[in-house]
Order: sequence, then C-alpha cells, then structure tokens
Amino acid sequence: MSPRTFIYHPGDAVAMSLVIKNGLVATQDPKRDVLRADVLIEDGRIAAIGKSIKGAKTLDASGCAVIPGLVNCHGHAAMALMKGVADDLNLEQFLGRTFAVDARRTRQDVRAGAMLGCLEMLLSGTTTFMDMYYHEDAVAEAVEATGIRGHLGWAVLDDDKTTQKGSPLKNADRFISRFKSSPLVRPLVAPQGVYACSEETLLGARSLAEEHGAGLHMHLQETRYEVHEHEKKTGKRPIAWLEGIGFLNDRLSAAHCVWLTINEIRILKKNGVGVAHCPVSNAKLASGGIAPVPEMRREGVPVGLGTDGSASNNCLDMFQEMKFCALAHKAHRWDATVMNAQEILDMATIDAARAIGAERAIGSIERGKRADLAIVDITAPNMAPTHSGNLVSNLAYSCIGANVRDVIVDGKVVVRGRALKAFDEAKIMKEAERQARKLLAL
Amino acid sequence: MSPRTFIYHPGDAVAMSLVIKNGLVATQDPKRDVLRADVLIEDGRIAAIGKSIKGAKTLDASGCAVIPGLVNCHGHAAMALMKGVADDLNLEQFLGRTFAVDARRTRQDVRAGAMLGCLEMLLSGTTTFMDMYYHEDAVAEAVEATGIRGHLGWAVLDDDKTTQKGSPLKNADRFISRFKSSPLVRPLVAPQGVYACSEETLLGARSLAEEHGAGLHMHLQETRYEVHEHEKKTGKRPIAWLEGIGFLNDRLSAAHCVWLTINEIRILKKNGVGVAHCPVSNAKLASGGIAPVPEMRREGVPVGLGTDGSASNNCLDMFQEMKFCALAHKAHRWDATVMNAQEILDMATIDAARAIGAERAIGSIERGKRADLAIVDITAPNMAPTHSGNLVSNLAYSCIGANVRDVIVDGKVVVRGRALKAFDEAKIMKEAERQARKLLAL
Repeated sequence: MSPRTFIYHPGDAVAMSLVIKNGLVATQDPKRDVLRADVLIEDGRIAAIGKSIKGAKTLDASGCAVIPGLVNCHGHAAMALMKGVADDLNLEQFLGRTFAVDARRTRQDVRAGAMLGCLEMLLSGTTTFMDMYYHEDAVAEAVEATGIRGHLGWAVLDDDKTTQKGSPLKNADRFISRFKSSPLVRPLVAPQGVYACSEETLLGARSLAEEHGAGLHMHLQETRYEVHEHEKKTGKRPIAWLEGIGFLNDRLSAAHCVWLTINEIRILKKNGVGVAHCPVSNAKLASGGIAPVPEMRREGVPVGLGTDGSASNNCLDMFQEMKFCALAHKAHRWDATVMNAQEILDMATIDAARAIGAERAIGSIERGKRADLAIVDITAPNMAPTHSGNLVSNLAYSCIGANVRDVIVDGKVVVRGRALKAFDEAKIMKEAERQARKLLAL
Repeated sequence: MSPRTFIYHPGDAVAMSLVIKNGLVATQDPKRDVLRADVLIEDGRIAAIGKSIKGAKTLDASGCAVIPGLVNCHGHAAMALMKGVADDLNLEQFLGRTFAVDARRTRQDVRAGAMLGCLEMLLSGTTTFMDMYYHEDAVAEAVEATGIRGHLGWAVLDDDKTTQKGSPLKNADRFISRFKSSPLVRPLVAPQGVYACSEETLLGARSLAEEHGAGLHMHLQETRYEVHEHEKKTGKRPIAWLEGIGFLNDRLSAAHCVWLTINEIRILKKNGVGVAHCPVSNAKLASGGIAPVPEMRREGVPVGLGTDGSASNNCLDMFQEMKFCALAHKAHRWDATVMNAQEILDMATIDAARAIGAERAIGSIERGKRADLAIVDITAPNMAPTHSGNLVSNLAYSCIGANVRDVIVDGKVVVRGRALKAFDEAKIMKEAERQARKLLAL
C-alpha cells in the first residue's frame, strides 16, 4: 500500500509537558514492546518513552496500563439515540425500521446523538473514530465539543435517492471546506454504497476527495444481496466494477467487506484500500459468513475494527468489538489459533490507524506520534491479575470499556477519573434523553 | 421436566423490610412484565411488587432498572487467577497448559481465586453461580464470605485419574455434609466428564446425590473428540451411554452440550436434564459448531448461560455472555431473528434458574421468591436512552457488568454503589495478586 498522506492539524496544544508515570505501557510499536515506563507528552505529541522522565505536570498511572487510544474504523455516532429500535430483524426489515427513523432526524437530534456517541466512545478508550452520516457538521461540532478525534464522512447518495436538502456532493464540499483546518476533525466524503451511488456520483466523490486532499469512506460488499444485485445490474461484482470505473484508490476505507473472493482482496490490496471489519454488526444483522480477515491480513490489506452504529451493535465499546472479533473467527474456522490476542489489539490500534490512513500520526505509542492514549485500570477485579506477560491478552479478552480511567487526545486530558473534563456529561445526557423522546415519540 | 426439588435454607435474613423504590422492573415473570414499580423485600424474600410501597428501609432505584440477579450456570470461579494462561490454543494444548497449572494449585490459591471470581461475578450482577472444582470447600468459604449464592460441585474423577488426596467421592460426601445447611451454598457432586469417570464412579456420584438430595453437574459432549472417543470405547455416544447405565436424571445440569443430535436432545428432555450453554468458551476453544440451543429450547430442555472458567473466557460478566450468545447464533444460522433479546435475558435469569433446578426460588422477580436482585444504572451513556420499550434489548445488547450499581442476595444488600459491602475488596485483590504470583511464578 502506498503511504497515506493525511495529516492532522496541530491543536491549541498544551505547551507544558505532561509525564504519565509508572504505567505498564503497551506501545504497539513495531516490536510490540510492553514496557514499565513513563511517557512524556510535549506539544500534543509523544516526546519520549523511558524510565524516570520528569515533566512540568505528571499523571500517575500506577496500577494502570497505558495504551494507544483505540481507533473505531466505522460507525454512525449519531445513532447512539437509536439503541434497540431494530433488533432481531433480518436486514431488509432492519433497514426499513432504521431508515424510517433516519428520515425524520433533525440537525438537533443528530447533534445530541453524536454528543452521546462521542461520550460513549471516549469513556471506553476510543480516541479516533471514522463516521458516516448526514448533518455531519453537527457530528463535527460534537467532536470539537467533546475533544475526541473524528474522521467524519458526509454521506453522499445520488440526488434522487437522498433526503438531504440540496445536492449531497455540494453539501460534502461545503462540509469539508468548513472543517478542513480543524485539529480534531478530518472531514471526508462518504458515498453510502454502490446501491445508492451511480458511477457519476462515485467519481464526483473521488474528485472532491482529491481536490481537498481528503479521504473516502463507503460501505462495501456487506451482504450477498448487495453483491448479487450489483452483478445483475452491471454484470460485475462491486469491487471489480469500482476498479473498472477508476474509483478505487488509497484514500478509501471500505466498511464491512464480508463477501469477498481472494481476487477481490488482491484488488483492494493493489489499490491501497483499507477495510473496517465490523464483526458485531455483521453477526447481529446475520450478514452471513464472516469477513475473510485472515486472508486480508495475509495479503497485506490493512484491516481495523469498527463498531458500526448503535442500531446494529448496540454499543460503541471497542474492547467488546475486539473480543467478539477473536471469538467469531475462532468459532467460524474451528481453529482457536486464528486471530490471537496480539492481532486483535493491533486491529483496534495500529492496524486500525493504517486502515483509515492515519498510521503516521496515531495507533501506537512512539516518539513523534500524536499523544492519543488511554489509561486502563488493571487493578479492577475483571483485570486481575495483569502483568507484562498477559497484558495483551487481558486487553483483548478481559477488559471492558469501563476499565478505562483516563483518556488523552492530542496531548490533552479529555477524560479523567472516568469523567469527561471539557464538557458537562449531565448536559449531554439530558439533551440526549430529550431528543430521543422527540425522535422516537416516547 | 419434572419439578426440581432443591430448596435454599433461610439465611440470617433481615427481619426488617426493604423497599426498592422507583426502578424500572424487568420482572421476568411468566408475562415478562416490565413495570415502573417498587419491590418490597421481607425476610429475604420478595413480598410485593407494586406502586408506592412503604417499608422500614428504602433503596432508591431512580434512573435504574431492577432485574433478577443473573444466574451463571457453569464455571470454575477459582480460575479467576488464571486469566491469559492459555489463550489462542487448540483444546489439546489448552488442556495441557491449564492442567499443568491446576495440578500445582493449593487450597490457599483456590480460595483466593474463588474470592476474586465471586467479586467479579457480584460486581457484574450475578447472584448465583454453578461451579465445579476441587478444594470446593475453599470456594464455599468464598461464597459465604462474599455473600453470593453458589451451587458448588465437588469435582469427581476415577481414583486413578485424580490429583486429589483421598477418594473424590468420599471428598464430595464430606463436602456436602459440611455445607448442606448453609443458606448460600447448595453443595453438589460434579463428575468431570465421561472421559474421566467410569460407570462405577458415575453411579457412585448419582447415589451420593440422591442420598443427600443434592444436584449433579458435569461436562457433556463439549467436543467431537469427546463424543468419538467415547463411542470408540463403549460403542455408544456419551448421552446414550449415560442413559443406558441409568445415570441421567433431573438432578443433573450438563455443561456445554455442543455436539448433540436431535435424538440426544430428546433424551435430555425425557430425563429432565438441564443444560449450561457456554458460547464464549466454546468459541474461544473453537469447539466447532454452535450448540443447538434453538432446538433444545423448542424441545423443552431448560438452557441457561454459563461463562465457564477465566482461562477460556476470560471474564465472568454474564452481560457479555448474553450478547455473545445472541450474536453467535444469529451469525451461525444466517438468521437475525433467532435468539432474540427476550430469549437471551431469559437464559441468564429464569431459564438459567430452571437449568440448575432452582426456578422455584430464584430467576425472576415474583412474590415469594428469594430476593436476589441486581440494580442497573440505565442513565450511563452506554445505556441511554432506556425506556420500558427497549429495556430488555438494552440489557441484552448494550449493558456491561460495570453498569450494575447494587446487588441484593437473599434480601441482603451485598453490593452498594459498585462496592462490596461485606468484605474488604482491597484485601481480596491483594491476596489474589499474591497467590497469582506464587501460582504462576511471576
């Protein structure tokens, strides 16, 4: 894969240095070192990892693990309001039920849902998420208000298929222009999928992304139905068709990719496409089969984990996604050795950063990277005993989001002692309840 | 299934009454009513459910759900010390690794591990668990010290296959005699499995159970290997063979039952056997296939969920087990409608109580039952919004153990504000760390 080129704009970072002391550090560096070490943060970046570092301010991480902030590669944060609206339904009925709610959403309830989703993610150790929705500017405001990092995709559909006001591509253009200099937001273009986007729309999205130096995000080959309908219509399966029209490139992160052949995996690799694997959502919607992640990894396609939205998950905890990912693949292959704990942690950190094109900036604790970190209480009963020998296992298989004590994004302490610092949580919760009542007519 | 006959002995129950006020109550009664109601507890039992009940003491459950305490139908609590000792290994290597640790365990580290396991379970809303291990008297002590309810099985193997001192059957006899009047412990006999128990041992276990009016617990048809080896040796698959020797009866709860034919399911039903389904453990060890739970439920076999031990899970959170159960079956059947949220919650409460023969006493919030309850914070970000229409869904799909605020067992408040009341948690954690260091040579 060619190196991704996205950069983050520096925030109004803490000039003062911060040292995280005495933690057990899962670096996720190329050697996957686990170190008893201090981590020095300066100007929003990781400046050093080592013993007995001094800094102006310290944060004690005794009894804690220090891990790269988790990277959620696919979701719809604003759907946090929609827990339980469409459970235990096959995909067709699920889409009917969720689209009916989607169609009556307002900018206000999208913002309230996004605030709730950002809160859920931050409290469970996620520091970056990839998103796709409309009113994505409201999601961007939630990102800036809560202090999480968001790769935010404005949903693009053909003009005659959308409920958006105006042309989705023009809306996306305006959205990207507005947020392209934000330190926490990477705005991007998100064509919903081949079933909702013509060749013209897709190539328009691609041009728009190139023009802005932005990313692309789309749903791809999630279900057999999608694959077969597209083949009926065009004579080609989606990936071959997308390659044929010149759409595929290394700006693209594709979500799901459940129904892939080995040749399609090689096309993704050749074109530098990253993949967001969403095992919980795929299982809950019974997409059938399990995405061929071991084969994608073998062929060098970067694969990260994503929770998908709260209507099909119904939670945004990446620790749960990690564990379910391991279990789903082991069960599916009748092989307990596939998807081991280290690979699972990789898919929520460094490989996830690769999958969304941000591996130069985030995904591991290495000198020079942005300081996006989660501090995890390893003295909690469900994490005991934790030592350097089983830390990775405990993170993949025993940890829950609620074990996260502190979260740092871009050098700033955003969560401290399991509470959001920058924003009043009670306000978020009150507004979420209020908007949910209106949206769901409770 | 013939009615189970187990009873619980009354504890030194709170004569004073306690009212749980203003909660959203998931009764799990025959109508599965969800009510905005108060719950009155008197003498360790549920005395009333209704509006504006008064009592000597009150516990405010505003912003909370009140649910039956969860019932974990299979595990080895003392293995809580053994997180991460044998991950990502196929069963043969897994057993080699865990047996090597098991063989050097002492009564001290079994007790420390059981204390940790009981703490993990209580904090995540489990009020009753079914267990199988040796030194089960140390597990019983942990049960009495922490205030959880335990159906505790002394592991029985052939004399020439065990590392226990003395005869396992005699040890089990002594164990049952010692604890049979304990209000929180239901002691029972736990033959490990057909691969470790001869006909003589199994019939001895059965007689012992009858003599004491006690239960039986065993591993059964977990893997293809177990089934085929037994068939090679005896000419019959385990269930048919067990029926043939007259072992099966309604005292028995069998764990796993992954590899079953429809005729075997009917044999279980005919003999009143309950089943503990352990989807996380089965997936992690790649037992292959998924236990035919929909068929067992259809045929009337009572099936509850179990976490199994921490070496093969690696956590004891029944909320996680619920969600994974739903996901595993939906994915396996390519059918999102199987194992819906209500069925999943049933398998952790009322059906779990059935599966361990305790449905007359626990598993639902109904007048006259023992007051075993969990109070769940539904204002937590990962649970919002929760209302009566999505409560069951949120419990099955969004909730994590850490959302549990208070736990009541036998009318006593055992966990209050996410902390154990009866016992110093720090002491449990310190001893667990100390014993883990010795056991695992850290």
